[in-house]
Amino acid sequence: MLSFEQKLDRYAELAVRVGANVQPGQVFVISAMIDTAEFVRLLVRKGYEAGAKQVIVKYGDETVNRLRFEMAPEESFQEPPKWHAAELEELAANNAAFLTVLSSSPDLMKGIDPERISTHQRTYGQAMAKYRQYQQADKMSWTGVACPSSDWAAKVFPDLPAAEQVSQLWEAIFAAVRADLEDPVAAWEQHIERLETKAVALNNKKYQALHFLSPRTDLTVELPEGHIWAQAGSVNEQGTPFVANIPTEEVFTAPAKHGVNGKVSSTKPLSYGGSIIDRFSLTFENGRIIDFHAEEGQDTLERLISMDEGSHYLGEVALVPFHSPISESGILYYTTLYDENASCHLAIGSSYAFNIEGGKTMSPEELAARGMNTSITHVDFMMGSPETDIYGITANGEREAIFLKGDWVF
Amino acid sequence: MLSFEQKLDRYAELAVRVGANVQPGQVFVISAMIDTAEFVRLLVRKGYEAGAKQVIVKYGDETVNRLRFEMAPEESFQEPPKWHAAELEELAANNAAFLTVLSSSPDLMKGIDPERISTHQRTYGQAMAKYRQYQQADKMSWTGVACPSSDWAAKVFPDLPAAEQVSQLWEAIFAAVRADLEDPVAAWEQHIERLETKAVALNNKKYQALHFLSPRTDLTVELPEGHIWAQAGSVNEQGTPFVANIPTEEVFTAPAKHGVNGKVSSTKPLSYGGSIIDRFSLTFENGRIIDFHAEEGQDTLERLISMDEGSHYLGEVALVPFHSPISESGILYYTTLYDENASCHLAIGSSYAFNIEGGKTMSPEELAARGMNTSITHVDFMMGSPETDIYGITANGEREAIFLKGDWVF
Repeated sequence: MLSFEQKLDRYAELAVRVGANVQPGQVFVISAMIDTAEFVRLLVRKGYEAGAKQVIVKYGDETVNRLRFEMAPEESFQEPPKWHAAELEELAANNAAFLTVLSSSPDLMKGIDPERISTHQRTYGQAMAKYRQYQQADKMSWTGVACPSSDWAAKVFPDLPAAEQVSQLWEAIFAAVRADLEDPVAAWEQHIERLETKAVALNNKKYQALHFLSPRTDLTVELPEGHIWAQAGSVNEQGTPFVANIPTEEVFTAPAKHGVNGKVSSTKPLSYGGSIIDRFSLTFENGRIIDFHAEEGQDTLERLISMDEGSHYLGEVALVPFHSPISESGILYYTTLYDENASCHLAIGSSYAFNIEGGKTMSPEELAARGMNTSITHVDFMMGSPETDIYGITANGEREAIFLKGDWVF
Repeated sequence: MLSFEQKLDRYAELAVRVGANVQPGQVFVISAMIDTAEFVRLLVRKGYEAGAKQVIVKYGDETVNRLRFEMAPEESFQEPPKWHAAELEELAANNAAFLTVLSSSPDLMKGIDPERISTHQRTYGQAMAKYRQYQQADKMSWTGVACPSSDWAAKVFPDLPAAEQVSQLWEAIFAAVRADLEDPVAAWEQHIERLETKAVALNNKKYQALHFLSPRTDLTVELPEGHIWAQAGSVNEQGTPFVANIPTEEVFTAPAKHGVNGKVSSTKPLSYGGSIIDRFSLTFENGRIIDFHAEEGQDTLERLISMDEGSHYLGEVALVPFHSPISESGILYYTTLYDENASCHLAIGSSYAFNIEGGKTMSPEELAARGMNTSITHVDFMMGSPETDIYGITANGEREAIFLKGDWVF
């Protein structure tokens, strides 16, 4: 039985050695909220142990962020974070490794004018477009891991005494990321290999389309020619492997921008920009969202979809079995990093350049010509359930079951 | 009797309204360590209340800083903080207001190779030269205020129970900054006026030189033609008043770079770059430090003096009466912001452009030609005592007492 400190140490080791896979001489950039400082300091130590030349920590403060939304004048939200963007761009261009510690409070922005939030997200998204482009082409190593904050833990375990919420969330995280095993780094190598086997099998099939069927979903998603199924384990421009998020249970590819038709319903709440969108459905025609309805967060959903032209289309389709460790924990995390790995999901917004053959070196125009979507946003939402069946449509029109009752057929 | 919260609120009000004097529409930049987040959030709120367009918080983490000095490879310390410098420069050029929350642990760098620290300080100082130039010409509003950290409080009150150290340091700060008065903003206006009266009186005298005398000090400091005595209350390029640090008890001017002769002994420990230099003396000939000796921190002192050519010379001479509130508290703060306001002091390194007539618009070369010192560093050290006498030498060679037994004569 490992102590808390041992598990925390292994988790940090995983984040730095498997996730970001920091190499000797690299700059290692950690973005985190100040509440996670103790975990961040452990990551910094691991980064230097891995040989980092410098570990740069970019701290944010959610209370300061919220004060801005509450108190700043309107024009404030049109100021792009240009220095932040320029710095990250240059670091990425010079092969730094990036790690984001996710700890957001799901209800942080409750009561804030959603117009302000979406203005901010648009301004921010536009400023960060180049960095996102680098990320979506796997130019550099980048990863995301979670760290409990007290607000987040309270949202996940509302019925536990306050003193136990954070430690319970830590234990759930340790289990989900396999930090409670004796050799988590080796366990991760095997896990990534298993996911890669699924991706290879799907790539060999070269399906023309996927058909999602469940009681509240009937959606056909065409796949572009040359699409590539990937998993979070990837390789950057320098040839260094990394894992874009920990945990990960998905294999995913890009849909054909104009080839999505039918209706899809969410199966878990979506925490987006500090607000919750829940029990929603989207209707597609030739790829475009032509109707949508949310029982909770309709305004927020509307603002997400109308962020730009590309946010009316999908950019990712991801397969996750219902019987995955995170899903089986039965915990609703209210954070995409975890909930997306407990459920098949789609993403509204831009697609990943590496999801199409030759995409990593294509210009945005070339990617668009190949049916790949471009947007300043990319937001996953969960639509898998134990009743989800998924069929692949082959080149000669045959239907093959990929998922039945929420799980892989093969 | 005001509550802790009331005093804290008044202190934050002073920092934002009197120190930085944030104006409607301005960007307000706060630099602080993460341990001071609660105070920072109050400053952010006050900043928006004052009409700031945006409050940017630049958080640092002393533990992360120390880990770098412990673990990073040598070449790390030659990497300039170029993005940080470029961002601050541009913000300053565009009339942002700047506030630094000082909370450093005096012993943070204990045991760290001083060579690494001085390499870092040189790299940092060079990168920040332009920003420092703006600051030293009062281009923008800038201020510094203190906030207790537990390490700092433990250093100041080592004999108190740990639970009382921080609150005791807060109370000492509130008293020193007059936050315990009913209307601290008005009290500060009067205080700045009193200091200005002293500065005006000295400016009218146009002394050729000052002569400092005490049992362990005998130092003559020539003053350049057109020198200006100033106090921390100043006016930026836009005509907005601000106070460069709170508290402040000094009036100060620039020495003639090549006109300092004799010997000066420190009267308080100097906390410099996370190390302590104590019980030291410096010997000057034609302005240059030709000999120095510290009973504690000799290595650190040597590295400070050899930082660059300008760090062999003085850049500031400041008069502070022994009977000032901070001095009378009898507390040794181990932080320059407080200790310099309890004692006459000198600064090793660059002088302030506003301390000479027309200096704010002079180039570095013009300033040098007027006898003003230039350096990438500026470090105050305390040399006043209750036995310090100071004489002014007039144009026709007469000696007039300015301080006797540590206090103003007039």
